[in-house]
Amino acid sequence: MLPKESPTFRLDIDREQRTGVSEAIFCLNKEPQQITEILQHAQDNEHRLLLTRLSQCKHQSLPLDWQQSLFYDPASQIAILGEVPQPLDDRGVAIVSGGTSDYGVCREVELTLGFHGIAARPFYDVGVAGLWRLEQCLPALRECKVLVAVAGMEAALPTLLAGLVPGLVIAVPTSTGYGVSEQGKTALKACLASCATGLVTVNIDNGFGAACAALKITTVTRTLAPNIG
Amino acid sequence: MLPKESPTFRLDIDREQRTGVSEAIFCLNKEPQQITEILQHAQDNEHRLLLTRLSQCKHQSLPLDWQQSLFYDPASQIAILGEVPQPLDDRGVAIVSGGTSDYGVCREVELTLGFHGIAARPFYDVGVAGLWRLEQCLPALRECKVLVAVAGMEAALPTLLAGLVPGLVIAVPTSTGYGVSEQGKTALKACLASCATGLVTVNIDNGFGAACAALKITTVTRTLAPNIG
Amino acid sequence: MLPKESPTFRLDIDREQRTGVSEAIFCLNKEPQQITEILQHAQDNEHRLLLTRLSQCKHQSLPLDWQQSLFYDPASQIAILGEVPQPLDDRGVAIVSGGTSDYGVCREVELTLGFHGIAARPFYDVGVAGLWRLEQCLPALRECKVLVAVAGMEAALPTLLAGLVPGLVIAVPTSTGYGVSEQGKTALKACLASCATGLVTVNIDNGFGAACAALKITTVTRTLAPNIG
Amino acid sequence: MLPKESPTFRLDIDREQRTGVSEAIFCLNKEPQQITEILQHAQDNEHRLLLTRLSQCKHQSLPLDWQQSLFYDPASQIAILGEVPQPLDDRGVAIVSGGTSDYGVCREVELTLGFHGIAARPFYDVGVAGLWRLEQCLPALRECKVLVAVAGMEAALPTLLAGLVPGLVIAVPTSTGYGVSEQGKTALKACLASCATGLVTVNIDNGFGAACAALKITTVTRTLAPNIG
Amino acid sequence: MLPKESPTFRLDIDREQRTGVSEAIFCLNKEPQQITEILQHAQDNEHRLLLTRLSQCKHQSLPLDWQQSLFYDPASQIAILGEVPQPLDDRGVAIVSGGTSDYGVCREVELTLGFHGIAARPFYDVGVAGLWRLEQCLPALRECKVLVAVAGMEAALPTLLAGLVPGLVIAVPTSTGYGVSEQGKTALKACLASCATGLVTVNIDNGFGAACAALKITTVTRTLAPNIG
Amino acid sequence: MLPKESPTFRLDIDREQRTGVSEAIFCLNKEPQQITEILQHAQDNEHRLLLTRLSQCKHQSLPLDWQQSLFYDPASQIAILGEVPQPLDDRGVAIVSGGTSDYGVCREVELTLGFHGIAARPFYDVGVAGLWRLEQCLPALRECKVLVAVAGMEAALPTLLAGLVPGLVIAVPTSTGYGVSEQGKTALKACLASCATGLVTVNIDNGFGAACAALKITTVTRTLAPNIG
Amino acid sequence: MLPKESPTFRLDIDREQRTGVSEAIFCLNKEPQQITEILQHAQDNEHRLLLTRLSQCKHQSLPLDWQQSLFYDPASQIAILGEVPQPLDDRGVAIVSGGTSDYGVCREVELTLGFHGIAARPFYDVGVAGLWRLEQCLPALRECKVLVAVAGMEAALPTLLAGLVPGLVIAVPTSTGYGVSEQGKTALKACLASCATGLVTVNIDNGFGAACAALKITTVTRTLAPNIG
Amino acid sequence: MLPKESPTFRLDIDREQRTGVSEAIFCLNKEPQQITEILQHAQDNEHRLLLTRLSQCKHQSLPLDWQQSLFYDPASQIAILGEVPQPLDDRGVAIVSGGTSDYGVCREVELTLGFHGIAARPFYDVGVAGLWRLEQCLPALRECKVLVAVAGMEAALPTLLAGLVPGLVIAVPTSTGYGVSEQGKTALKACLASCATGLVTVNIDNGFGAACAALKITTVTRTLAPNIG
Repeated sequence: MLPKESPTFRLDIDREQRTGVSEAIFCLNKEPQQITEILQHAQDNEHRLLLTRLSQCKHQSLPLDWQQSLFYDPASQIAILGEVPQPLDDRGVAIVSGGTSDYGVCREVELTLGFHGIAARPFYDVGVAGLWRLEQCLPALRECKVLVAVAGMEAALPTLLAGLVPGLVIAVPTSTGYGVSEQGKTALKACLASCATGLVTVNIDNGFGAACAALKITTVTRTLAPNIG
Repeated sequence: MLPKESPTFRLDIDREQRTGVSEAIFCLNKEPQQITEILQHAQDNEHRLLLTRLSQCKHQSLPLDWQQSLFYDPASQIAILGEVPQPLDDRGVAIVSGGTSDYGVCREVELTLGFHGIAARPFYDVGVAGLWRLEQCLPALRECKVLVAVAGMEAALPTLLAGLVPGLVIAVPTSTGYGVSEQGKTALKACLASCATGLVTVNIDNGFGAACAALKITTVTRTLAPNIG
Repeated sequence: MLPKESPTFRLDIDREQRTGVSEAIFCLNKEPQQITEILQHAQDNEHRLLLTRLSQCKHQSLPLDWQQSLFYDPASQIAILGEVPQPLDDRGVAIVSGGTSDYGVCREVELTLGFHGIAARPFYDVGVAGLWRLEQCLPALRECKVLVAVAGMEAALPTLLAGLVPGLVIAVPTSTGYGVSEQGKTALKACLASCATGLVTVNIDNGFGAACAALKITTVTRTLAPNIG
Repeated sequence: MLPKESPTFRLDIDREQRTGVSEAIFCLNKEPQQITEILQHAQDNEHRLLLTRLSQCKHQSLPLDWQQSLFYDPASQIAILGEVPQPLDDRGVAIVSGGTSDYGVCREVELTLGFHGIAARPFYDVGVAGLWRLEQCLPALRECKVLVAVAGMEAALPTLLAGLVPGLVIAVPTSTGYGVSEQGKTALKACLASCATGLVTVNIDNGFGAACAALKITTVTRTLAPNIG
Repeated sequence: MLPKESPTFRLDIDREQRTGVSEAIFCLNKEPQQITEILQHAQDNEHRLLLTRLSQCKHQSLPLDWQQSLFYDPASQIAILGEVPQPLDDRGVAIVSGGTSDYGVCREVELTLGFHGIAARPFYDVGVAGLWRLEQCLPALRECKVLVAVAGMEAALPTLLAGLVPGLVIAVPTSTGYGVSEQGKTALKACLASCATGLVTVNIDNGFGAACAALKITTVTRTLAPNIG
Repeated sequence: MLPKESPTFRLDIDREQRTGVSEAIFCLNKEPQQITEILQHAQDNEHRLLLTRLSQCKHQSLPLDWQQSLFYDPASQIAILGEVPQPLDDRGVAIVSGGTSDYGVCREVELTLGFHGIAARPFYDVGVAGLWRLEQCLPALRECKVLVAVAGMEAALPTLLAGLVPGLVIAVPTSTGYGVSEQGKTALKACLASCATGLVTVNIDNGFGAACAALKITTVTRTLAPNIG
Repeated sequence: MLPKESPTFRLDIDREQRTGVSEAIFCLNKEPQQITEILQHAQDNEHRLLLTRLSQCKHQSLPLDWQQSLFYDPASQIAILGEVPQPLDDRGVAIVSGGTSDYGVCREVELTLGFHGIAARPFYDVGVAGLWRLEQCLPALRECKVLVAVAGMEAALPTLLAGLVPGLVIAVPTSTGYGVSEQGKTALKACLASCATGLVTVNIDNGFGAACAALKITTVTRTLAPNIG
Repeated sequence: MLPKESPTFRLDIDREQRTGVSEAIFCLNKEPQQITEILQHAQDNEHRLLLTRLSQCKHQSLPLDWQQSLFYDPASQIAILGEVPQPLDDRGVAIVSGGTSDYGVCREVELTLGFHGIAARPFYDVGVAGLWRLEQCLPALRECKVLVAVAGMEAALPTLLAGLVPGLVIAVPTSTGYGVSEQGKTALKACLASCATGLVTVNIDNGFGAACAALKITTVTRTLAPNIG
C-alpha cells in the first residue's frame, strides 16, 4: 500500500505585508494541475495573483475557464489573476534595453511593475553598437531614479549607463545570443564584473526580480525610513 | 628605437557630479608606481580619493611619505587620501554578515560608506546555522531601508533576510569556504538563483560596489526624484 | 558477417541481501525493449522490481500488458512491479520540500521508501522565503531521525534545517529554477558548501538515492550493529 | 571620522543541544587575532572547542600561550581546546581511504570523532587499483554501520564499497590528483553520479562534515527515535 | 548575384593505406543530401564505407534506395555500405560494459571492429555496483590483449579493470546518467584522473574511436614493427 | 490597467557609413512578428537588409508575401531583402573549411561577403586528418590576403594554416562534434590558445562576424588609410 | 642505464618569410637554461629575437652576460635580442585601453610592433565608465586602420569602439579584475559575444598576438595582394 | 584521549605480475615523511621503485641519505630507487613533442620507459606552427608502432600525427600556455575531440601514464596473446 498524494503548496499571503512585495507563482517547473489548484485557492480567498514563466503551451493546457479568467501576455509569459490597479505614474523607473530580442524580458518588468501600480518608461533597442540611440535618450534617463537595464550578448549597456546617470542601475542580463553567450551567462558575468560603480544585478532573464527590486526602492523605502532627510 | 612609455591614467573627476559616486582607485592590478602617480595627481588637484584592494604588501611598497599620508585599514585593504566627513547618521543602511570570516568585506562596505558620510549599522556573524542570532536582530533589521548582506559558502543569509524584511537586500557573496565554494562562485550563484523576491547582487567580495549602490539609493535618489512621495 | 546482438543485462538479485537495498532499474537511458526484457526476467524469477525515471512517454511505449501490470506514478516517473508491503510506520523519516515545483522529486522519495515498507511524513512547500511555514513544522521536524530535504534554486532549506534539528539531514538539490540555477548545479553546490554541520548530499533530483540512504539508516543499521547502545 | 571596528563573532554555544553537534571554528578565512579572541571567549566561558583548517603557519602565528594550550595535529590541521573524552568504542564507524595521500583528511575524520568520544576503525590505502587490499578488509567492513570513504582522483572506492556492504557509506572526495582531477571536483562528481545505491557525499576534503554526519547517525539517532525498533 | 553552392566534401580514400584505418563518415552534423552525395561518390568508386551517428530519423530521410542498400543498426546508429568481411577471430579484443544503458556505444565498438574483420568478445552489464559480475568474467578478461571498457555515471569500471588485467584498457566514458553526470563529462574525467596505471581514454560515447585504436593495436602494429619480438 | 506594448526596434541605418558594415538583423531570438515589422520598415525606407540565423521554421512562419520577397538560403539560415550587387572579385579572401559538416557556416561567410559585393574563393573539406588535401590548395592559399578558416572538433586547421600562409587567418570555430567538443567551445579555445602567430578568432559558428572582419580589411582599410604605403 | 637528455628546440627561422611574422620565444614555461641555449643559437646565427612572457624573476636568473645583452621591459615582460629598426610611422595602428591596469598588455603590443618597425599610437585609460574620455579621442580613432582594444573586467570598450569606427578592432581581453572576472575569461567571452560587427579577438592578455595580427594587416597584406584596388 | 596515528600505506607489490606495470609512488600529495617510510619499506623488501611528481623542493626535504640513494631528474621530477636495466631497444616507441616547453613531460615518458628497459626515440619541438619540422621526421615516425605525442596550447600535433602514421598515437596534453589554455584543459579536450581516427588520450601532463600504456602495448601484449598473427 503506497502513500497517497499530499497537498503540495502553502501560499505565503503574508509576504506583501512582511516584505512589500506580494507572492508570485513561478510556473516554469509546475504542472498545470498544480497551477490550477493554486489559482482556485487564491480565488477562493480573494487574492490577486501574478504568475510568471507560464509558457503559452502550458497556459493553453489550463482548463478553459481559467484561461479566460486570466490576463495573459505571451511575450513575457506573465498571467494575472484579479484586478490591475490604475498606474499612478512612473515614479522615476525606466526600462532600457539593448536590442529587440530582449523585448520579452522588458515586458516582464513592465507587467510586474504594472501589477503593483507603477507605469515605467520604456527605452528599447538602444544598445551600444549604435551609441547615438542611447545618447538621444540620455537627458530623460538622467532624470530617473531607478533604471532597469536589460541586455544580452556582451551586455555592455548596463555598464555604459551606470557611468552616465545618477540613478541606480539594476542590470538584467538576458539569454540573447549563441555560442560563448552561453544562454546569458556571459552577459551576467559582464554585468557583475563591470568597471562601473554601483551597478547591481539579478539572475538571467529575471525581469520579475528586477521589477521587485525597483518596486522596493520606490515604494517600500518611501514608507519605511523617516530618516531619509 | 622602441616607443617610450606613455602616461597611463586619466582620472574621471567628473564622475561624482555625473553619477553621484566619486571615482575610486582599484589597486589590485596596478603597480606601486602607477598608484603613486595617481595619488600625486589627486593631491595636486586637491581631490579626496578612495583606494580599494590595496594589499598590505603593496601599501608597504609605496614611498614612506605616501604610507604616512594615507589612512589605511588592513582588514578591508582600503586606503583613503584626504579628509573623511563627519558621518550624518545611518540613513537606514545595515550591514549584515554570515560569519566572522566575512569581516574584511564588511569593513570595505563600512569604510566606503564612511568615506561618503554615512555610518551604517553592523550586524555581524548572524549566519543561518544558528538562526536565533538573526532572530535577535530582526526588529532592528525590519526598520532598515537598505541591507547589505555579506555571506559566503552556501550564502543562505541574503535569501532568508529578503523574505523577512521590507528593505532592499543587496547581497555580497564572499569567497569564504573551500572545495565547491569555488572562491565564492557558489555563494554568488545562490544569491542570484534565490527564491526570495527583489534581491540584487554584486560581484564576489565586492563590498565597495554594494556600498556604492546603497549610497545611490539613500543619497542620490533622495535628491533626484521629486515624485517619490 | 557482422556480430549478432548479445544479451545486455545481468540482474543483481543478490544486492538486497548484500547491501540492504534491492536493485532498481534506471530507465532514463534504456530502450523500451530492454526494459521489457528485464521486467520479463524479473517476473519469471518472481522478483519485485522498482523502476525509476520511466518517463510517461516511455511508459506508454511499453507493451500494453506491461503497462497494466505495473503500478505507475507520472509525477515521480516511478513504476513498481509486484506487491507493495503494508508500510509499518514512518520510522522517523521526514520529507521536507522548499516549493511546489519540487513535488516530483519528493514523490520519488515517498514511493521508494514505500516500496521498502516505510511511510515517511511529508512537509511540503516550506521554503525559506516564508520562514513561518518552516517554523510551524519545527516541533514535528525536531522529532525526526532522518530528514530528506528537497530544494532547488539557492537551496537554503537544507542548511537552515540542519541548524535547527538533531536528526541527520540528507539534501536533495533539485533542478528547479533557470539561468544561474544551472539545472540544479547551484542548489547542489550550495548544499555541499553549507555552513551547517553534518549535512550530506546526493545527486541533483536523486530522490531515489536519498530514500535508499534513509532506508539504510533506519533499517540496515538497526539490524546490523549491536553496539549502538 | 570613520566607523570603529565592531565585534565580529557570536558563538553558537547552544548548537550541541539543538543539533547534537557542537560548534567548531573554521579557521581557513579567519585572521589569527579573530581566532585568539574566539579562543579567549570560549576559555572564559569554559567551553571545549574544535578548530578546523588551522594551517601550521597560522597556528604558529597565534600567541605562544595559545599554541601551548591547544592540542594541534599538523596532518589534519585540527586544534582542540579543552579536554578530550575517553573514547567509548568505535560504535561501528570505519574510515576507509583510497591512498596514502588522503591521510590528512582521514585524520580530520578521526580527530573530529575522537573529540566527540568515538574511536573509529581505520582502513587506509585500500584503493581499487589493487583490489586485493579492499578484499582483505571486507569482512570487517561488512560489520560496520557507517563507513566514511575517503578518496581522490577518480574516487571509485566509495562506489565499490557501497555495492559490497550493508552500512551507510559517506563519501569524502579529496583534492588528491592533478589535471582533470580539478582539485577534487572530479572525485566529488564521481561520488554524486555513482551507480551505487544509497551513497551520500560531503564537500571536497570535508572530513569534519563526514565525521559530524557519522556522529549524528550513531549518537543522535540513538537517543532520539524510540520507534527504531 | 550571390555565389553558387560549391562541392562540400573530399573523401580521404588514401587514409586506410596511410594510417591503417579507413575513413568513416560522421553523420551527426551533415544534411541528408550531403550524406547521399558522399554515398553516391563512394559507390561510384567502389569503396566500402562506414557511417557513424546516423540517427534513425536521418536514416529515414535518405532516399529509399539508399535506405535499402545500407546495412543499418539503430542501437549504434551505424550504417555500412558494401560487403562486410568474415570476421577472423577476436584477436584478443574484449568489450566490457558497466550497464545495460551503455549498449548502444558497445554496439558501435562491435560493428566498427566487425567492419574491419574482427569479432570482439562481449562482457556486458558487469558494473562495479555488483562486483561479483566482473569477478565471474575475470579469467576470460585476463587473457585479452585490449579491453574496451564502456561505462557512464562515475565510470569506476575502467579503473577497476586496469588494476586487474594485463591487457591495455581503452576507456569509453558514456553519457549515461543525469545531474552531475553532465552528459558524460564526469565519467570522462574519472577515466582520465584514474589512479590505475596505463589507462587510455577517448571522447564521450566514442565507441568508434576506441574500436579504431583497438584495431591499430591488433592489426597495424602486427604488420608494422618487426622488432616486437 | 496594464501598460500597452511599445515599439521594440530602432534601425541603425547610419552604421554602414560609420563603420563600413551595414546593420544586419539577428533573427535567433526575435519573434516572426518583430522580423516582419523590421522588414516592413526597411522596405518603406528603401534599405537593403541582411538577416542572419533565420531558421527554416521561422522563415516559414513569416507572411507568405515576405517569404517570397526574400532571398533565402536554408544551409546558412541567411535571408536577404533587396538587390545583391554584382560581385567584383574575391579581393584575396579565401574560405577554408575543415569538414563537410561546416558547410552551413561557410555559406554564411560566402553570402555575407556576397551581400557586400565580394566573391570569396571556397576551399572546403581540407581538414588536417588528411593533410594532402590542404597541401593541394596551398599555393592558392598563399596568395590570399585574408583566410576565413572554419573548423570544429579540435579545430587544428586554423593553427596549421596560420603557420603556412602570409595572409591574416580569421578562425571561425564551429559547433561540429559531440561530447568534449562542447558545442564548439573546445574548437574556440583551441583557436584562441593556438601556438600559431597572428591568428584572430570570432564566436562559435559566427560566419557573419568573420565575413564582416574580412570585409573591413579588404574594403574599409583600403579607403581609409593613405599611409599604407 | 637511463636515456640521456636530448636537444629540445628547433628554431623556425623560416617563419618570417613564410608568414610575414618572425618566430618569438614564449618564455612562460621554459627553464632559464633552455632560454639561454636558444639565445646562444640565435646569436650564433645572427638572428634578431623577440622573447615574450619573460618574468622579471626569470630574467634575473639568466647569466649576467645575457641580462646585459638583452633589452628588457618589466611591464610587458618582453626582451629583445639584437637591433630594433627605426619605426617608420604608425601605419594607422592605434592601441586603446580601458584602464591603467591594462598597461602591461598595451606595452606588449607596443614593443612587438616596435620590434617590427611600427610605432603605434597610444590611447590609454579611456574605459567606458567615463565615456567622455573615449569621445575626446574619437576623431583620431576614426582615422585608424587597425585598433587594438585592450580591456578587462566586463570589456565593454572593444564593443563600443567597433560601433564607432571604420577600422578593424582587434580585442585583447585582459585578466584585470577579480571574482566573476575569472582571470579574464569574462572579458574574453564578452568580446566574442559582442553585438558589434566585425570584432575579432585573441587570447587573454595576448598583446603579442594582437600586434602580430595588426602587423599582418598593415604589412603583409600590402605586399601580397595586388587586387586590393 | 585521541586516536594515535595509523600506518598509511600498503604497497601493491603484486601489481607488476598482475598488470604488467609495477607500482609507482605518486609524490605530489604525500608528505616527505610518508615518502621516506615507503622508500624504507621498498628497500627492506628489495623492490625497485619509481617515484613521480617529486618536486625539487620535496626531494631536498628528504633525509640526505635518501637524496643520495635515489637517481633524481629535476626536469621530469622523477626519482628512481634501485638499478635501471640496460634498455633493449626502442621497440618502436617514439616521443614527439610540440615545443620546447613540453620537455619536462617528455622526459617523464623517457624515464618511465627507461625504468622498464625501453629506450624510446625522441622527436622534440616539431609543433605544427612550423610544419616542415614534422615533415622532416615523418619517414622515421611512420615506422613506429606507438607514438606518444606531447603537446600543449591548442595541441594540434596529435591530431595531425594520427592522420599521417599507421602507429597508435597516445596524446599527452600539457599545461603549457596561458589564458584559455586553462592549465592544459583546452589541449586535453582538443585531443579528445579530434577529427583524427584512433587517437587515445591520458590526463594533462601525464607522461607517466602514456609511458605505461606504451609499455603495455609493446611488452605485455607481446607475451599475452598468441593469436596476434
